[in-house]
Amino acid sequence: MAETLEYDVVVLGAGSGGYAAAMRAAQLGLKVALVEGDKVGGTCLHRGCIPTKALLHAAEVADEMREGGSIGVRGSFEGIDMDALNSYKDGVVQRMYKGLTGLVASRGVETVNGWGRLVSKDTVDVDGTLYRGKNVVLASGSFSKTLGLEIAGRIITSDQALNMDRVPNSAIILGGGVIGVEFASVWRSYGVDVTIVEGLPSLVPNEDPSVSKQLERSFRKRGIKFSTKTMFERAEQDESSVTVHTQDGKSFTADYLLVAIGRGPATSGLGYEEQGVSMDRGFVLTDERLRTNVPGVYAVGDIVPGLQLAHRGFLQGIFVAEEIAGLNPRAIDENLIPRVTFSNPEIASVGLNQNKAEEKYGKGNVEAVEFNLAGNGKSQMLGTQGFVKIVRVKDGPIVGFHAIGARMGEQVGEGQLLVSWEAQPEDFDGLIHAHPTQNESIGEAILALAGKPLHTHN
Amino acid sequence: MAETLEYDVVVLGAGSGGYAAAMRAAQLGLKVALVEGDKVGGTCLHRGCIPTKALLHAAEVADEMREGGSIGVRGSFEGIDMDALNSYKDGVVQRMYKGLTGLVASRGVETVNGWGRLVSKDTVDVDGTLYRGKNVVLASGSFSKTLGLEIAGRIITSDQALNMDRVPNSAIILGGGVIGVEFASVWRSYGVDVTIVEGLPSLVPNEDPSVSKQLERSFRKRGIKFSTKTMFERAEQDESSVTVHTQDGKSFTADYLLVAIGRGPATSGLGYEEQGVSMDRGFVLTDERLRTNVPGVYAVGDIVPGLQLAHRGFLQGIFVAEEIAGLNPRAIDENLIPRVTFSNPEIASVGLNQNKAEEKYGKGNVEAVEFNLAGNGKSQMLGTQGFVKIVRVKDGPIVGFHAIGARMGEQVGEGQLLVSWEAQPEDFDGLIHAHPTQNESIGEAILALAGKPLHTHN
Repeated sequence: MAETLEYDVVVLGAGSGGYAAAMRAAQLGLKVALVEGDKVGGTCLHRGCIPTKALLHAAEVADEMREGGSIGVRGSFEGIDMDALNSYKDGVVQRMYKGLTGLVASRGVETVNGWGRLVSKDTVDVDGTLYRGKNVVLASGSFSKTLGLEIAGRIITSDQALNMDRVPNSAIILGGGVIGVEFASVWRSYGVDVTIVEGLPSLVPNEDPSVSKQLERSFRKRGIKFSTKTMFERAEQDESSVTVHTQDGKSFTADYLLVAIGRGPATSGLGYEEQGVSMDRGFVLTDERLRTNVPGVYAVGDIVPGLQLAHRGFLQGIFVAEEIAGLNPRAIDENLIPRVTFSNPEIASVGLNQNKAEEKYGKGNVEAVEFNLAGNGKSQMLGTQGFVKIVRVKDGPIVGFHAIGARMGEQVGEGQLLVSWEAQPEDFDGLIHAHPTQNESIGEAILALAGKPLHTHN
Repeated sequence: MAETLEYDVVVLGAGSGGYAAAMRAAQLGLKVALVEGDKVGGTCLHRGCIPTKALLHAAEVADEMREGGSIGVRGSFEGIDMDALNSYKDGVVQRMYKGLTGLVASRGVETVNGWGRLVSKDTVDVDGTLYRGKNVVLASGSFSKTLGLEIAGRIITSDQALNMDRVPNSAIILGGGVIGVEFASVWRSYGVDVTIVEGLPSLVPNEDPSVSKQLERSFRKRGIKFSTKTMFERAEQDESSVTVHTQDGKSFTADYLLVAIGRGPATSGLGYEEQGVSMDRGFVLTDERLRTNVPGVYAVGDIVPGLQLAHRGFLQGIFVAEEIAGLNPRAIDENLIPRVTFSNPEIASVGLNQNKAEEKYGKGNVEAVEFNLAGNGKSQMLGTQGFVKIVRVKDGPIVGFHAIGARMGEQVGEGQLLVSWEAQPEDFDGLIHAHPTQNESIGEAILALAGKPLHTHN
């Protein structure tokens, strides 16, 4: 007979959603087991957000080295040293991993190292030991989708792309969403000949259409090639290259094919269906309080339909812990979750884009202002193009914030407050943004929205 | 008899405060003359914010080149090419100047090129032509103070430091305030041996004490030397060097001495006193609606006691134009004006520091949370140290925001909203900051303040 251990909360998966749930639950005095077969931190820390952003920072430095002469900084860019780059990337990951495991332990969470499986409605089996929880939180995360392609040799996903031992000469990227454009941006900065193949009519198709257009302009200028409205048909590889054939009869050949068509929920074989958890195409269905149809079983993170973002996982994890503890937290509005694409240029958005706002409020009832970064001193110094776009209901609150340009991802916090707190231009009476920052571009957009533009050509 | 031209508003000085007043007044339908003997844009655009930030961006690139190897970007830093650097800097200034003059003209402001003087309570004389305004706005700006030192040869102010034809080997900087630490930061990045001499007990003495401490730690690490509590006595120069003697009997010798002890109001000889305008040590006194004691005469910008910042000038200029137009704008609260020091590390603050909050609300009624950037992924990638510090009234609103670290100046916009809108932690229920950004550090501080820290070691 297997040993059964009893908990208030058993969390299956220690990625962003799982560890946040576990730490918050423990902080609230609950007895928590956090089950993880791989490493605490999950995709984001080990194979996602963190390592990609290290590559992206090295990319920024490579570009600045290359262009330093034009601003009076003499020097040269001599290429990427993959060993040193990987050490830097892994060093950041390791430091954060160490910090995180220390945190988890200090909060009194019991971490169980092993692959768990839901074997009854309240129990997770890990290598024959049973972890029974008054509540169970499913947080098993996601994996790179592959369109049925065999990931081997020259056909890779982001998992392999994060651990290359050399910089390829050329790459095809299948998918022009967040992951695809981030890798396109990194590789181009490293000198790679990059082509993106995207089935939809634009890059980053979930963003405001003017953001997509600006990204395409910037990528064209950077020499990143892309074919939109181009449907993948098949790929074949040999010892020296990989070729992608598309449905319009074209073909693309390169050193590598990165398959970046999104991430699927990692729920297969974990016992969810067997225990009667309602699912849809692999995703776990929940209500707005993140409860599955099985009493006492919750789900958080990438397995729940919606934005697959680490900070959404944090938020959901904290929410579920507070829900279990009886704090009755405010339900999460996914529309208020900030989104950042860390390519160069960066993209930040929160709330509705102009199209969606017009659908919701009626075309005549929506007003949008764009402030072009050409009028922003700091952005000029960085040599970047882009804009801040604010969408509001006429005579009503701001409902959408969109920004594109080098480093503009950092502006998303203020954007989130504008949308979440339903700001109106008059809320800024008596306020001014700091000069000369990129942040000032938000201030300029708001001044324009208030009918008193300062540095706006109109 | 001199020709007299009639206006609704005559603005004396076309810096940040003056041009903002003129453009807003014109937009509100008033007839405006904007009098400027030098260039529209004033100190900020031509000799202040903008050119210094260009030097600072080049400094950032120089540091990244120098350290690129450690993150896998092979290359070298070979020095500063002053001609190219000056071209870059002047190029940014020129583009913005062109944009600004176009804007001013397109708004219907009449720019008068010449040095103006207040010759009666409602009239400015420019080379014998009289510009009479129903309202007059004094906006004559500021100049670098010199402690009575002759600015020549090796003894310079920021005016000369912005237009060097070579990088010095060594420099003494008199004054550890904003201007002093920005130049110290730039020059150190360019390879200069820098020593700051400051009379007060810390660098950036107007900031929160923990911010000053962190800046001093970072500067020490960067090899920037400084002597605080060190009073200047005299300076002497010869053909090869300049020596500063301090009251404690020490002396410092270097290639250049930058005098960065602050900026004085440029009001001398402009007729203000003669027309009965109340003044104090050269500053023009106003009430909270920026009215001087002379009816119809307003003052904005660096001549008004308070923060000498371009964006304060913008805000005051817009305010005065709206006041004149009868819009009854909300009075400006100087405490809500964001402050940024663009050194490396950058400093951002708005509202009260901990000391001042404790003075105002009582020591037991103030709570402060610091989130260390060691726990922030993006800051780790940038290799920077620092923190976000949020000061609140216990069980009450946030009253102070402070941040230090590379690029943290860009966080000041969200900080301003926290303080200005009197945010409380519960206003963030259901919200989360984007991962992995530096912006997230604000979210972590707020989570800690709300009693539910996520990535905070405590």
